[in-house]
Amino acid sequence: MMTTRIANQKLRERVMSAEEAAALISNGQTIGMSGFTGSGYPKAVPQALAKRIEGEHAQGNPFRVKIWSGASTGPELDGALARADGIEFRLPYNSDPIARAKINAGEMEYFDMHLSQVAPMAWQGFLGKMDVAVVEISGITAEGKLIPSASVGNNKTWLEMADKVILEVNSWQSEYLNGMHDIYYGTALPPNRVPIPLIRPDDRIGQLHFDIDPDKVIAVVETDAPDRNAPFSPPDAVAEAIAGNILDFLEWEARRAGLPKSLLPIQSGVGNVPNAVMAGLIKAPFEQMTAFTEVIQDGMLDMIEAGTLRMASATAFSLSSDKAEYFNANAAFFRDKLILRPQEISNHPELVRRLGCIAMNGLIEADIFGSVNSTKIMGSKVQNGIGGSGDFARNGYLSIFVTPSVAKGGAISAIVPKVAHVDHIPQDVQVIVTEQGLADLRGLSPRQRADLIIEKCAHPDYRPALRDYYQRAQQSSYGKHAPVLLDEALSWHDRFVKTGTMHG
Amino acid sequence: MMTTRIANQKLRERVMSAEEAAALISNGQTIGMSGFTGSGYPKAVPQALAKRIEGEHAQGNPFRVKIWSGASTGPELDGALARADGIEFRLPYNSDPIARAKINAGEMEYFDMHLSQVAPMAWQGFLGKMDVAVVEISGITAEGKLIPSASVGNNKTWLEMADKVILEVNSWQSEYLNGMHDIYYGTALPPNRVPIPLIRPDDRIGQLHFDIDPDKVIAVVETDAPDRNAPFSPPDAVAEAIAGNILDFLEWEARRAGLPKSLLPIQSGVGNVPNAVMAGLIKAPFEQMTAFTEVIQDGMLDMIEAGTLRMASATAFSLSSDKAEYFNANAAFFRDKLILRPQEISNHPELVRRLGCIAMNGLIEADIFGSVNSTKIMGSKVQNGIGGSGDFARNGYLSIFVTPSVAKGGAISAIVPKVAHVDHIPQDVQVIVTEQGLADLRGLSPRQRADLIIEKCAHPDYRPALRDYYQRAQQSSYGKHAPVLLDEALSWHDRFVKTGTMHG
Repeated sequence: MMTTRIANQKLRERVMSAEEAAALISNGQTIGMSGFTGSGYPKAVPQALAKRIEGEHAQGNPFRVKIWSGASTGPELDGALARADGIEFRLPYNSDPIARAKINAGEMEYFDMHLSQVAPMAWQGFLGKMDVAVVEISGITAEGKLIPSASVGNNKTWLEMADKVILEVNSWQSEYLNGMHDIYYGTALPPNRVPIPLIRPDDRIGQLHFDIDPDKVIAVVETDAPDRNAPFSPPDAVAEAIAGNILDFLEWEARRAGLPKSLLPIQSGVGNVPNAVMAGLIKAPFEQMTAFTEVIQDGMLDMIEAGTLRMASATAFSLSSDKAEYFNANAAFFRDKLILRPQEISNHPELVRRLGCIAMNGLIEADIFGSVNSTKIMGSKVQNGIGGSGDFARNGYLSIFVTPSVAKGGAISAIVPKVAHVDHIPQDVQVIVTEQGLADLRGLSPRQRADLIIEKCAHPDYRPALRDYYQRAQQSSYGKHAPVLLDEALSWHDRFVKTGTMHG
Repeated sequence: MMTTRIANQKLRERVMSAEEAAALISNGQTIGMSGFTGSGYPKAVPQALAKRIEGEHAQGNPFRVKIWSGASTGPELDGALARADGIEFRLPYNSDPIARAKINAGEMEYFDMHLSQVAPMAWQGFLGKMDVAVVEISGITAEGKLIPSASVGNNKTWLEMADKVILEVNSWQSEYLNGMHDIYYGTALPPNRVPIPLIRPDDRIGQLHFDIDPDKVIAVVETDAPDRNAPFSPPDAVAEAIAGNILDFLEWEARRAGLPKSLLPIQSGVGNVPNAVMAGLIKAPFEQMTAFTEVIQDGMLDMIEAGTLRMASATAFSLSSDKAEYFNANAAFFRDKLILRPQEISNHPELVRRLGCIAMNGLIEADIFGSVNSTKIMGSKVQNGIGGSGDFARNGYLSIFVTPSVAKGGAISAIVPKVAHVDHIPQDVQVIVTEQGLADLRGLSPRQRADLIIEKCAHPDYRPALRDYYQRAQQSSYGKHAPVLLDEALSWHDRFVKTGTMHG
């Protein structure tokens, strides 16, 4: 037992095994889990719960729970519980492959939400009652305050809402996390909301630790287990080309608009394209930059070390395993340059609009008028979820969406006549970038956008078919404002499902 | 000449005829017009400009301009200029039938925007340069400040941005308008934005009048002409039934959530359904209500007179002609209960989220998963535009969308397998209401939503076909998360275009 991380006597008395803690959870309950993009999620209790569920199922007893989280977690949580067929309902984001397969087989209900809205909607009672919160923390102070872990997510709200609380104290997490968090307790239900007093990405407006009613804590479980962060795939030529197009544009836009040398706070999705952009930003003519974003990823730590990025505000880490170990070994250097906040704050529309974030997010497909599908392959199979892309895309200074122009070795075009599902409407999509080029859609009508998207972003192999579709649509569409051929608009997707390629 | 409305000597010297003022506008220029939902738009100069354009065209000379506004205007502006084929490009909203026909014939470019974003995006330089502003006001003070008219819209920004300014001083507008406006001058470009200091709908945070650099004013034109507001169609049985469903729900929600007696600030689109809701609210158990909304419509004045509505904040009036005359005759009573603000503020996501508005907007069609099309008939013919619906639907406490379950005598179902265009994603649609019933979609997965929308909202004549489609989709869709039949999803629209009815 490593109770040095638990400095409070009363909560030290609640220490028990993960199995004992999991036994306190009942069939049908709603559980608020910590965890955001593979960091700071509980690791022991969900696995013990999964085992218990398997045992109950083996005896013919029903046992499924509803899981709410910050965002994605890890295989020990979503993976283990989904494999045990223990998740009845899941919100607001998932990237676990087993859970995804269950969702897409129609065996698990999934409610995909804007990440900024989870905490307020839960508090407003829109989502129902929460029975138990299971929250990873990195320590407990003598006064009984909770030191957050590598993600903040919705933990403040879960700790407040849940009838009962189970804590996992993970000693793998760096002790230097203590001091990095900013937990804002100033939110309220309407009509009692007030302005959020943050005007710079590095403003601190809250407290370092979570408050907790110790009488609600029914179990404390000690762990020493790493976050299972996604592996880092190094940028390939396509990612480098996309990043190059974005960097050229940002330099041009900064000159055009007279933006400061520090640009504006950047927000970036996760992946090899964003990491390539960040590598490029190290060499770009910007200084003392900031990030106001959801997650801190590998490239941001590199930018901080290079001196290009002054600080980053986020709700979670999303590092590769190597970089996570590197962070832990160098946390003393990074700690005063990073702030982790509740996701309600990191993604808050009020703050994203005020700060004027430059939002960069990935997409699955875009159509010729600029609608973006970022969640559903062929319109029906969810990939992950909308995450925070809507929070940032609608409210930022600039909303940039990026994608390779083709997927599956060319069988899928990322530019289609009509997206099979819409997550982002053209009003929220100012720039689309592929390795082919960049379409600046600001101030353009649908038909002006179509010409640009086809010619700048589509892969040359798909351009003739897109031009042909669009030309015929202009002739025979019901309306000519945003011409569409209703009997053909989704035929590319239909063809892919039936033949394995969008090519005719 | 009625120069009593022009108390400033310097600007009085700029008085000229509408024809003389229109002669100061050149081919190809971008003009920022005042006007929002048929109120406060310039009436004389646009008509004179239209005449001039017709003259130029008759001589074979090109003459077209780009028109930016607050929202919709009147026949003297969009109608006259569109008839003269004088509009090359239009933003951000239009409801004029002649302009609409040109747009849908592919003869006029139209950029449909979130109304809260017009002023900031224009200021950020995203839309290009503005040459001339043509703004209706209700008077000029001795100090040279401009007393706004019946709408504020984007006028503050147009007056700041434009190289040159033409003013129309309309003495038809009530002198009691003076004192009703709140023009906030605290916005900034990022990174210099600060919290907007409004925490109650009746907070005043700005000044009564517009500032203007008198050297930019190239013309002042006097008018005495009514706003051409849309006629009021009294609620029919369908509107009454929809309103009844909403009112029942609001009472239930207020009890469930423990909302105050004053409920939360209401936002409402325009039309006979909203007016029926407001008539019902007069009898509902709410007191001292407020509105934080885009437009002040007939029903709100009735609610104020009944004492149910304490005050309303908006950016414009949108009254029937009778009610506009009534307002003018009773402006002394209403003036301290109404505040008109720039649309950037009336619709600001920061404020809509903070205040927790209850948003009620119309739709053209919704699909079984809760995506909403509020702009494009059969996916390609624009009706009006997205307006402020996105500002309120995404950020409000509750987002309610309303529609009769069928249109065109039953030939069109408002509930379809898949919407032909998306303006509002399911994340932003909490409640859908028709005369058939109400679907409370909060916290539900796509398949849970589908059952509810089909059974509660669809017209009984279309329910069997919707059930049949959805059942087959659940069996054979590529993914079962949000099942779709790609080769059939838009067939209802296609059938309507080809046969005049969605019925098979």
